[in-house]
Amino acid sequence: MNRPAECDPALQHGAPLAALRLRRLGIDTYQEPVAYLRSDCPVCKSEGFEARSRIEIWRGERHIVATLNVVHGPLIEMDQLGLSEAAWHALGGADGAPLRVAHARPVPSMSAVRAKIYGRPIGADAASAIVRDVVDGRYAEIELAALITACSGARMDLAETIALTRAMVAVGQRLRWDSEIVVDKHCVGGLPGNRTTLLVVPIVAACGLIIPKTSSRAITSPAGTADTMETLAPVALDLPAMRRVVEREGGCIAWGGAVSLSPADDLLIRVERPLGLDSDGLMVASVLSKKIAAGSSHVVIDIPVGRTAKVRSPQAAHALARRLEAVGREFGIRIEVMLSDGSQPVGHGIGPALEAWDVLAVLQNQSGAPDDLRQRALQLAARVLVMGGKAAPGEGLALARSVLDSGAAWSKLQAICAAQGGMRTPPRAAHTHVLAAQHQGRVIAIDNRRLAHLAKLAGAPKAPAAGLELHAPLGTLLGTGQPLLTLHAESSGELAYALSYAQAQDSLFTIQEAP
Amino acid sequence: MNRPAECDPALQHGAPLAALRLRRLGIDTYQEPVAYLRSDCPVCKSEGFEARSRIEIWRGERHIVATLNVVHGPLIEMDQLGLSEAAWHALGGADGAPLRVAHARPVPSMSAVRAKIYGRPIGADAASAIVRDVVDGRYAEIELAALITACSGARMDLAETIALTRAMVAVGQRLRWDSEIVVDKHCVGGLPGNRTTLLVVPIVAACGLIIPKTSSRAITSPAGTADTMETLAPVALDLPAMRRVVEREGGCIAWGGAVSLSPADDLLIRVERPLGLDSDGLMVASVLSKKIAAGSSHVVIDIPVGRTAKVRSPQAAHALARRLEAVGREFGIRIEVMLSDGSQPVGHGIGPALEAWDVLAVLQNQSGAPDDLRQRALQLAARVLVMGGKAAPGEGLALARSVLDSGAAWSKLQAICAAQGGMRTPPRAAHTHVLAAQHQGRVIAIDNRRLAHLAKLAGAPKAPAAGLELHAPLGTLLGTGQPLLTLHAESSGELAYALSYAQAQDSLFTIQEAP
Repeated sequence: MNRPAECDPALQHGAPLAALRLRRLGIDTYQEPVAYLRSDCPVCKSEGFEARSRIEIWRGERHIVATLNVVHGPLIEMDQLGLSEAAWHALGGADGAPLRVAHARPVPSMSAVRAKIYGRPIGADAASAIVRDVVDGRYAEIELAALITACSGARMDLAETIALTRAMVAVGQRLRWDSEIVVDKHCVGGLPGNRTTLLVVPIVAACGLIIPKTSSRAITSPAGTADTMETLAPVALDLPAMRRVVEREGGCIAWGGAVSLSPADDLLIRVERPLGLDSDGLMVASVLSKKIAAGSSHVVIDIPVGRTAKVRSPQAAHALARRLEAVGREFGIRIEVMLSDGSQPVGHGIGPALEAWDVLAVLQNQSGAPDDLRQRALQLAARVLVMGGKAAPGEGLALARSVLDSGAAWSKLQAICAAQGGMRTPPRAAHTHVLAAQHQGRVIAIDNRRLAHLAKLAGAPKAPAAGLELHAPLGTLLGTGQPLLTLHAESSGELAYALSYAQAQDSLFTIQEAP
Repeated sequence: MNRPAECDPALQHGAPLAALRLRRLGIDTYQEPVAYLRSDCPVCKSEGFEARSRIEIWRGERHIVATLNVVHGPLIEMDQLGLSEAAWHALGGADGAPLRVAHARPVPSMSAVRAKIYGRPIGADAASAIVRDVVDGRYAEIELAALITACSGARMDLAETIALTRAMVAVGQRLRWDSEIVVDKHCVGGLPGNRTTLLVVPIVAACGLIIPKTSSRAITSPAGTADTMETLAPVALDLPAMRRVVEREGGCIAWGGAVSLSPADDLLIRVERPLGLDSDGLMVASVLSKKIAAGSSHVVIDIPVGRTAKVRSPQAAHALARRLEAVGREFGIRIEVMLSDGSQPVGHGIGPALEAWDVLAVLQNQSGAPDDLRQRALQLAARVLVMGGKAAPGEGLALARSVLDSGAAWSKLQAICAAQGGMRTPPRAAHTHVLAAQHQGRVIAIDNRRLAHLAKLAGAPKAPAAGLELHAPLGTLLGTGQPLLTLHAESSGELAYALSYAQAQDSLFTIQEAP
């Protein structure tokens, strides 16, 4: 985010900018850069800064845009400019470093967002300008929210989706591989426990395909694929490290946030998720910009469909599938979509390490391994193997199964973990507690949302061993006192806290008494 | 925002909530309530709080919803919950007061906002739920931004506008008057210097009409009508005080923020303005909810039309007018719309006191009084007088002029000021500087946006005497060295700062050299 000196605000309007000194305040505002100035400091008064002014901060040639908070009283000194963690990470510098500030210019591309809100489609130039300003940190969060809202519902057509996807690819890095066929898989809308990536990647890599997979960390859920993988191996690889792993083993499972293949997407998601808005256009641009940047040629996309899943009806799934395929064609990528059952969690564990144990059980062909996780992974791997030319149509499943059953996939995951920096044993929680059925009967409903909340109260994903194990999936016939789930926590306090929450819920499991 | 004890979060799920102590941090985040907790404090860990979590904070039975910032390091103590100014004003309490916290429930009415984004109109129940949650402070700013975006452009129909207006009236107080005819005037989209309210109110009150006028303070401009009136008299009246003034003098000019006749509107505007979005539906609900709550029966609305005004074309103005009239009919209010010239500032002064001096010059019939301000006010007053039955159609202008020329309006403004708490003389700035033309020629363009910015750099509206006086309106023929404007500031630093900005601009005035 360097800019030539003629944009220096002091030169722009000749104003005598007062000197300020950097102070890292240690305030984590999540990803929004915030700056703090004393209300009675001269620069605040002379610039006419107020709470919520958007200001541009310069440290030498580096600069950022931040939202201002005004401080009354002694929290900071008169000549200090306090920085939130996000602001400090973007600007850098040590305490005391000299800074200059000015009003930030209005975001130029917001006029294109307003035009979109008033009904004009986003063209290629507008998409580029918007994505560039987003990546430069010029959008305030309410402006990001307006952008996302304007693109939600059915408001983005195919041409806009393509324009946005292209713009998102253009602002990031793009990988190229020697192989003509580079495969990938993606799941739209996470089901708890649905860690097929950790099975599909070793299966298809063991068959000789190239699969440079990046995954996300949890944002609102108890575990993301990157969090689960991190209990087995380091995931914060940079691009050269990721390339080395893939060139050696054919595949990797890296944290997407570290390689930043589609940096605009990371910034949009931070506002999109808490708003809970769905947009086929944004989702397709988000998914495919990352796949295009990763250099993929063939991608299988899993769309779980269910009442509590992201995609709620087969109709919605088909519309999304058509959009994915059409945008993929535009960029020369072949997309195949697979609809799957999204009605309940997958596997036994919820939480990073507990989900990793499920994955290991499947790879090691343990007798108690969760069969639903195994079957989903085999289906996906089969599609990838056929797309990638490693199996004839109809023979992918047999190949995937043989690679899993023979232990070749398990060897491959160990090799990938070693290449990513060394395999680890997932941690086990020091504190556990079994919740039992209060009366006999059959499990007819499970509240996934509350189970996810319970796993988070127990400490997941920050405490990697925390979470819960489900013992009673839908349809289980239980006697009084039989186990429903086991809570796992790394501290007794967190266990007690999660337990008191669990005991106050009467609808985690709905058990219908047998007549 | 009190709630019965059964909503106490500790009782809701039986969790052992840790005790925290209140700490007012003095951080002004504008109107968004923010709370601060140490990242390593037990409650943060056990509740799974993170930066940006929405949390509910209880002090006894009072409670608020706030956005969490997480603090690393010693800025606050382990057992303290820091509050931003907005959070502290809403929750109250002294440093050290015991507080309890829990995750805030998701905002229930956001589902109606999402439905609107996906294309379903906002019905009466949804409008009520949304407005109630907004007034209860449950919406985060990004959620407010999504709501406003979803209602912008041409996306609200008449039925939705009526539903929203009704909901906004229902959550606030509503005034009733003995008179059947209660008049009001309103200007949509402020032109700098357009202080007709301070003339129309005394003219029509002097004729015996009831006009309980509320006005806003500046949000992004150098002066709001309430800021200008405040240089003449107190404006922060509560409802009983406002009623006393109107019962005694027939009219008042009070700050709307103090009487809170449409509290939802105040909260929406704080996000609407910085986004710069226009929505006929939101604008109509905003204006009319306040007029209905104030008990008005007949309202004249001024819509300035111009390239840099809020409404840019006669077509847009007519559509807005039809919507205003239709919603007015629904609530039994008669609305008359007047389109006016919105191409340049009104009067000489920009800034609270300077605009007040313009008003006084017109009321006192001074020879140098700005005639454009006088004529606009007379036109508006004439319409109000005819609507209110004080003049026959076609005779309103003569009546308004006679009341102004006779000094009756001037006497009435003095009486209103006395009733509001005592008339003041507007302050004069200690520091002034004249900017002169660099070459001869005719003024063919004035950059209103930069002039407004200049007045703010000089200190307006916080420094009420600050701002600028225009000496060269459009069409003025100037000789080299003749004055363009005079800067006014309360401190020499602010004057120097504004001056250096002004001198670096080459387009405040465009002067075409005469051949």
